[in-house]
Amino acid sequence: MSRFFNAFHSPIGAHSSFTLGCLGAKGGLGLELGKPADQNVYIGVETRRGGTFEALPFFAGSEDEGSRFDHARKAVEQTAKLCSFNHRRITRSYALGTDCWKAGDLTFTIYSPVESVPDPDKTSAKEMRRVLCPAVTAELTIDNTAGKRPRRVFFGYSGGRDTDAMRDMNQQLSGSYVGVAKGNRTAIVSDSPGLKVGQQFDIEGFIDQPLDELDPHALGGTAALLADVPAGRKRTFRFAICFFRGGIVTSGEPTSYYYSRYFKRIEDVGRYALTNFGEIKQRARRSDRLVARKTLNADQRFQLVHAIRSYYGSTQFLDWDGRPFWVVNEGEYRMLNTFDLTVDQLFYEMRMNPWTVRNELDMFVKRYSYTDRLHFPGGKNEHPGGISFTHDMGICNRISRPGYSTYERQRLTGCFSWMTHEELVNWVLCAAVYAKQTGDRAWLKANLSVFKKCWRSMLNRDNPKAALRNGVMGLDSSRTVDGAEITTYDSLDESLGQSRNNLYMAVKCWAAYLAMEEIFTNQKQTPPAAQAARQADNCAQTIVSHVTDEGYIPAVMDEDSTSRIIPGIEGLVFPYVLGRKDLLTLNGRFGPLVRALKTHFETILKPGVCLYPDGGWKLSSTADNSWLSKIYICQFVARRILKIRTPATGREADRAHAGWLRKEENLYWAWSDQMTSGVAKGSKYYPRGVTSVLWLEEHG
Amino acid sequence: MSRFFNAFHSPIGAHSSFTLGCLGAKGGLGLELGKPADQNVYIGVETRRGGTFEALPFFAGSEDEGSRFDHARKAVEQTAKLCSFNHRRITRSYALGTDCWKAGDLTFTIYSPVESVPDPDKTSAKEMRRVLCPAVTAELTIDNTAGKRPRRVFFGYSGGRDTDAMRDMNQQLSGSYVGVAKGNRTAIVSDSPGLKVGQQFDIEGFIDQPLDELDPHALGGTAALLADVPAGRKRTFRFAICFFRGGIVTSGEPTSYYYSRYFKRIEDVGRYALTNFGEIKQRARRSDRLVARKTLNADQRFQLVHAIRSYYGSTQFLDWDGRPFWVVNEGEYRMLNTFDLTVDQLFYEMRMNPWTVRNELDMFVKRYSYTDRLHFPGGKNEHPGGISFTHDMGICNRISRPGYSTYERQRLTGCFSWMTHEELVNWVLCAAVYAKQTGDRAWLKANLSVFKKCWRSMLNRDNPKAALRNGVMGLDSSRTVDGAEITTYDSLDESLGQSRNNLYMAVKCWAAYLAMEEIFTNQKQTPPAAQAARQADNCAQTIVSHVTDEGYIPAVMDEDSTSRIIPGIEGLVFPYVLGRKDLLTLNGRFGPLVRALKTHFETILKPGVCLYPDGGWKLSSTADNSWLSKIYICQFVARRILKIRTPATGREADRAHAGWLRKEENLYWAWSDQMTSGVAKGSKYYPRGVTSVLWLEEHG
Repeated sequence: MSRFFNAFHSPIGAHSSFTLGCLGAKGGLGLELGKPADQNVYIGVETRRGGTFEALPFFAGSEDEGSRFDHARKAVEQTAKLCSFNHRRITRSYALGTDCWKAGDLTFTIYSPVESVPDPDKTSAKEMRRVLCPAVTAELTIDNTAGKRPRRVFFGYSGGRDTDAMRDMNQQLSGSYVGVAKGNRTAIVSDSPGLKVGQQFDIEGFIDQPLDELDPHALGGTAALLADVPAGRKRTFRFAICFFRGGIVTSGEPTSYYYSRYFKRIEDVGRYALTNFGEIKQRARRSDRLVARKTLNADQRFQLVHAIRSYYGSTQFLDWDGRPFWVVNEGEYRMLNTFDLTVDQLFYEMRMNPWTVRNELDMFVKRYSYTDRLHFPGGKNEHPGGISFTHDMGICNRISRPGYSTYERQRLTGCFSWMTHEELVNWVLCAAVYAKQTGDRAWLKANLSVFKKCWRSMLNRDNPKAALRNGVMGLDSSRTVDGAEITTYDSLDESLGQSRNNLYMAVKCWAAYLAMEEIFTNQKQTPPAAQAARQADNCAQTIVSHVTDEGYIPAVMDEDSTSRIIPGIEGLVFPYVLGRKDLLTLNGRFGPLVRALKTHFETILKPGVCLYPDGGWKLSSTADNSWLSKIYICQFVARRILKIRTPATGREADRAHAGWLRKEENLYWAWSDQMTSGVAKGSKYYPRGVTSVLWLEEHG
Repeated sequence: MSRFFNAFHSPIGAHSSFTLGCLGAKGGLGLELGKPADQNVYIGVETRRGGTFEALPFFAGSEDEGSRFDHARKAVEQTAKLCSFNHRRITRSYALGTDCWKAGDLTFTIYSPVESVPDPDKTSAKEMRRVLCPAVTAELTIDNTAGKRPRRVFFGYSGGRDTDAMRDMNQQLSGSYVGVAKGNRTAIVSDSPGLKVGQQFDIEGFIDQPLDELDPHALGGTAALLADVPAGRKRTFRFAICFFRGGIVTSGEPTSYYYSRYFKRIEDVGRYALTNFGEIKQRARRSDRLVARKTLNADQRFQLVHAIRSYYGSTQFLDWDGRPFWVVNEGEYRMLNTFDLTVDQLFYEMRMNPWTVRNELDMFVKRYSYTDRLHFPGGKNEHPGGISFTHDMGICNRISRPGYSTYERQRLTGCFSWMTHEELVNWVLCAAVYAKQTGDRAWLKANLSVFKKCWRSMLNRDNPKAALRNGVMGLDSSRTVDGAEITTYDSLDESLGQSRNNLYMAVKCWAAYLAMEEIFTNQKQTPPAAQAARQADNCAQTIVSHVTDEGYIPAVMDEDSTSRIIPGIEGLVFPYVLGRKDLLTLNGRFGPLVRALKTHFETILKPGVCLYPDGGWKLSSTADNSWLSKIYICQFVARRILKIRTPATGREADRAHAGWLRKEENLYWAWSDQMTSGVAKGSKYYPRGVTSVLWLEEHG
């Protein structure tokens, strides 16, 4: 499997990434992008014999070096000043907080700490600045101890041609700092002695110039920091790779980056990161330990690291009228706080910074809740509805209007239809998990009325007549007009795409009723608690009643579906994270349901049904579109809750899934979610894979 | 010649343009670009028979409609909802302040007033806001008086996919306003009743939807305003096409747009432009009169209009620490205030807003002047130098460091070398013209010391020994290290590219000495005045002494050049605009020089020498790279000063030059300067063509 996959190296909450790893001009310093910046990145050193230069293969033309034979390489080296290192001789160590490349006498390590964002309402500005500093750092070491002559070392990039020029930062940086930048938005800054700025149309224009004659040309789109390492010496240079956007960054409503409270210019960012270089490096190394658990196999660890890094590239922490506004962008799609991603990222955010979950939930209540009416499918009919929440809060720096998402449209039955019921359930589940895991009673009390509205809304969506309720969604929202609701699985067929009577939705509803039962019981809301319990029981019975002779439960119940879907078991995760393992036993209150789902899963996890030939999981037997984020949850459920610990739920699946991410076609996109026969067709460069953090629970 | 050429429609000082006219997705709303925005622009109406739609051909796929036969068109119309109008049935009226398209029952007129920018130190905020409002306006009229059914009308654009999403502005606009925007930077706003917002992935997704069911999809990259015009009615809709960038916009030094004093958001811009719609329209129509002079032929008028419009797209009026900073960007290259463009744009700015010339000159003195040493070519030698000025003040929103331009580099003898002597002469000439034409004595007095430094610097650049001076540049700047200075004609061969001993430079130096002679005389600076006079005489004698037997003067004197160059006569323009026609007579003080230059010009303006086969002017006999901006000056000099009024200096040349601009290859770039056999190879999308304003002097 290729080492040359793109990885995010992202500050927290800056919606930016120093993406690197894919061969060619496929990475670079990206700010607010749904893809890599596609810049040339030059990290390299002069050859031992001198006069020619080798760099890591992250610039245009460097893609093919690896496949060349050495004698062919020699011919290239004779005509070009700059070559890629031989690809086969490059090694990479990829961890959560560090990413280290070695080739010849060069070592390049990027440090991007993964850590909790503290609650800004309870944290000093000093500490907030520390965590939110919009930079990652790097070290470039050249070991010239065996060298007979001084050797040139360089690190820089080509910023492309748009509104802002590449520039030498020396006039804006005082003291011992040097840097190159593109406008005010991206920069590489250093305080290591001996570095000088070069700038030309291309790097070969200055790479071999004496340091005191570099004469940077501000017209040039390529800039780098350069130094000479004396013969017999080993030297390490340190860099801050910085991002900055000041002022108002969103339309719809005006917000700015939270970090812009602490940093006024990109130069401030560079100086701060370098002043605190040692600590940042230490924090990055400490991050590696987050995923160090021995029970993870290497394929699992790779996926978890890859996913967590991708998540941070999508984080965008904003200041909205003085209040914190936590946003996770939706990868390549860049929708803001897509709720059906929030519910999956929940497991990660609860571990790292639960206040962000609260922040998201509050915004959904305050601005992105609405009340609808309902209808049964077919013919004209209307029934009372209730509260729900929008799919998202905007797109591409645009905050959408109150009560409406970017995504949802009326009169549809497939992609872009409303996800009313699913987002309602998502609010209940996220809120219950937040309240339970944090013990934040004040928040729970303040939101009890919302829980009650949700409870009423769920009942209405089952059936307007209490006697006819079966615990499962039966009506669609008036927001669809004459359409039908969909689930988060919007690009799959109806096995997972249709919301009404869907098995995946039903198990999540069951979990939501149980969560509400507990909350209402504790809050002495006896009738709602009883009714929630009844609905959970109804729901379980309905599901169990649909078990087929073959042992599986159809994806859509009470209709003609014969699709088998793995996410039938997905919802079992919620009682688990709510600490209610008692509800998940094979012989407990929901024994029949849990047994039915276990049988269902065992029946379908078979080649040709829900297993690809390579051992990868196929979420639906009828659709070739499998989502890694959801697979990760279901793997956890299968192994940890249903106790099915086989090669097919573990090692073999992990190997297949890690293999997908490292397929040639997928290397550019870092972590991607939607896989068609193992090739990313959608949800690329995506944050959702942090569901894999659940695997860290699998011990003992 | 094609009607389908791109034209700028630009607010003043906003470095932005609603560029439109070239077939296909080749125009759109561009902010801080060196090229068109390449967006789909949709301006159209439903066909009379209904259900299909015709638009002006400014979207992808509309390029080829015109060449199709009508029966082929019918087939296209049957499969596509939206077609281009038949290109052959589209008319265009292109004037300075208005640009009007007609096709079928549709009329679309864009209004972009051309007017003076008042001196901000002497002008009310109200008046500044009026002139600087970063919007152009447009009217879309549909004549449905013959129609039997209501017809849909639409105006919108596709914003492309980068950091900012397209959006419906309705939540941010109150009252009767509607609008679509891309982020906070570009927008189309209207207050015409009946318009609704549509937004989808593409326009065919909503163009035929009932207005009350448009259900805009915020994910979509295409947005438009739509209305229905009832049968039997004619209706006009009005629009503001808005640009906005708030906060700090430059790196190097922090500056913001001057207009951001008066407008805080793009919504403010739209409301203001619509509230003042009638006045803006009136001012645009009044602008048309600026070029209405009857002595201009149609080809001249076209070039003048095209050039003036292109100039405004490059203007960027900034606020630097509370002080006005007037910037003209260099077209596709986007260098800031390139001084050798400033000296050409001088004629236009003196007519429109002389304070901007002062503003530029002051900045060149304050931040972009330097003192050098000098050397003769070959061998090591060093002599005293003097003051000069940099080539430019930065590039692509980056303000360069004090004393250094973006462009100039050491150790070169061609493109990107220093233009020390030329920029020195440019300061003297611009400053003299500013002082003379405005009568601004206070400024002249404050800058007398600068003039004296310039005088001393020019002397030193001739020869360190007074006795050996011949009025012509003999030494190169130490800023070149061991290189040689070039002129503005950087991409030509040495006939115009080499500065030392160059005929073009010599005549400009002569003009500069004369300007200084007059200033020093008036300021009672007797010895400098006498020495300036002597140098003018020296220079004239040197030039005259180089007349060849054939009658021309070699491009580079005292060297082996046999190149013939038209810009030998260029410098004669300066005594003219300084009101010193007495210095330009055939029998006056400089009779020999003027006669020599006249003969020179008549000798070379011949086919195969300095005329292309089509009658266009070839600036140098040895280089196929001719610059329209400079041709315009030399046409003026030939006709107005040298009294050579022939078809070759007038009608035939004008026809050829206008023809160049409207060649297929050049249509995309609006006005371009550098033409290789009539095809724009450099200096595209360029501001410099306003030299043609000199033609307005040619009357009586």
